[in-house]
Amino acid sequence: MHPIKTLILYAHPEPTSFSAALKRTAVEVLARHGEEVTVSDLYAQHFDPSAGRHDFKTTADPHRFHYQTEQLHATQQHGFADDLAQEQQKFLAADRIIMIFPLWWGGPPAILKGWIDRVLACGVAYTDGARFTSGLHPSKQGLLCVSTGGTPERFREEDVYGPIDKVLWPLQHLTFDYMGMASLPPFIAYAAPRVSAEQRADYLRQWTQRLSDLPHHNEAAQRA
Amino acid sequence: MHPIKTLILYAHPEPTSFSAALKRTAVEVLARHGEEVTVSDLYAQHFDPSAGRHDFKTTADPHRFHYQTEQLHATQQHGFADDLAQEQQKFLAADRIIMIFPLWWGGPPAILKGWIDRVLACGVAYTDGARFTSGLHPSKQGLLCVSTGGTPERFREEDVYGPIDKVLWPLQHLTFDYMGMASLPPFIAYAAPRVSAEQRADYLRQWTQRLSDLPHHNEAAQRA
Repeated sequence: MHPIKTLILYAHPEPTSFSAALKRTAVEVLARHGEEVTVSDLYAQHFDPSAGRHDFKTTADPHRFHYQTEQLHATQQHGFADDLAQEQQKFLAADRIIMIFPLWWGGPPAILKGWIDRVLACGVAYTDGARFTSGLHPSKQGLLCVSTGGTPERFREEDVYGPIDKVLWPLQHLTFDYMGMASLPPFIAYAAPRVSAEQRADYLRQWTQRLSDLPHHNEAAQRA
Repeated sequence: MHPIKTLILYAHPEPTSFSAALKRTAVEVLARHGEEVTVSDLYAQHFDPSAGRHDFKTTADPHRFHYQTEQLHATQQHGFADDLAQEQQKFLAADRIIMIFPLWWGGPPAILKGWIDRVLACGVAYTDGARFTSGLHPSKQGLLCVSTGGTPERFREEDVYGPIDKVLWPLQHLTFDYMGMASLPPFIAYAAPRVSAEQRADYLRQWTQRLSDLPHHNEAAQRA
């Protein structure tokens, strides 16, 4: 029985935002349950979202930049830039990844998409022939905690945004599932900027409950 | 009859990539048909994908950064940072937006997501009550040109990635349609790095044909 290690990826520029409250709640609740919690506060870290040669200390091909080739080479040669190597260590050490962000244009803010593009490198997060059911990270869980501007009605099957699972498909399925991770049902704070302060407090209570109900030690995590 | 103005958003770090070839083809073909073509080469421009106070010369609230509030304020006060104001002018002037990019983790590279997050500001791209069928930009067309690592089989309904329209939902529907734009069927170069040179040449011929078949003057565009 080892404590679960959770990595929180938090992507909001404003410390008084509701996303920040969701992040603080997660840190407090999971720590109270004995988990080892690490936070990557991407805005505070000034995380660079743009992929490029600066991802690497090594060079596989100086003439043509092929991203996955350079990633695989860097994996073999310990050639990732320090900021990426640090994030990769956090990712590899974690039993659970929680992404906390506001939904912008139907997806994560670019700073979080950039973390995915750059940190989850070929060779680290996946390789040829090791994806989905054969993915490299079957013992990890993935959980999204998303605040939206839209009301729940907007996310009905027939309404304008479509079901939240369809909106979040690129993250839930094409990222978490792709790596072989267990993708947990997302936590959604709908219309967070539009609802009352009481409703937002209720969201935090629901989020606390959701987090409390997760397994907090490794043996339980593997059974779940 | 005015020539169509097309803005190409191109997001690939490598000038010899297949995405670059798709971009060059688009520029050449549309110009040959008399269009006015503008390219935002996001990597070449070192476009900053991360939203924040640096988006603005103006400040609506110095104590709490609420992004849409600052965007709306900047719209009213001409308060966007120069790089964003320039991109917004390109967007507003365009009849057609073509996004050319490799599919990374089921979505656009972060540098392009950041363009969407920051340039398509509240007040410029949409406002409260002006979305989808009441969107601000009904005369604009949106077209995605995407290269994938995955084969077409992978994007079948029952296969691992799911249908391409589901994968691209956040862009086709939650971005283009959201703004009231006409979302054209995407052009997909499946498995671009895996197919033969002949197949890639064929993709470029198909892309040329697709672009040639578009209306190239305004009256025709409005009829389409």
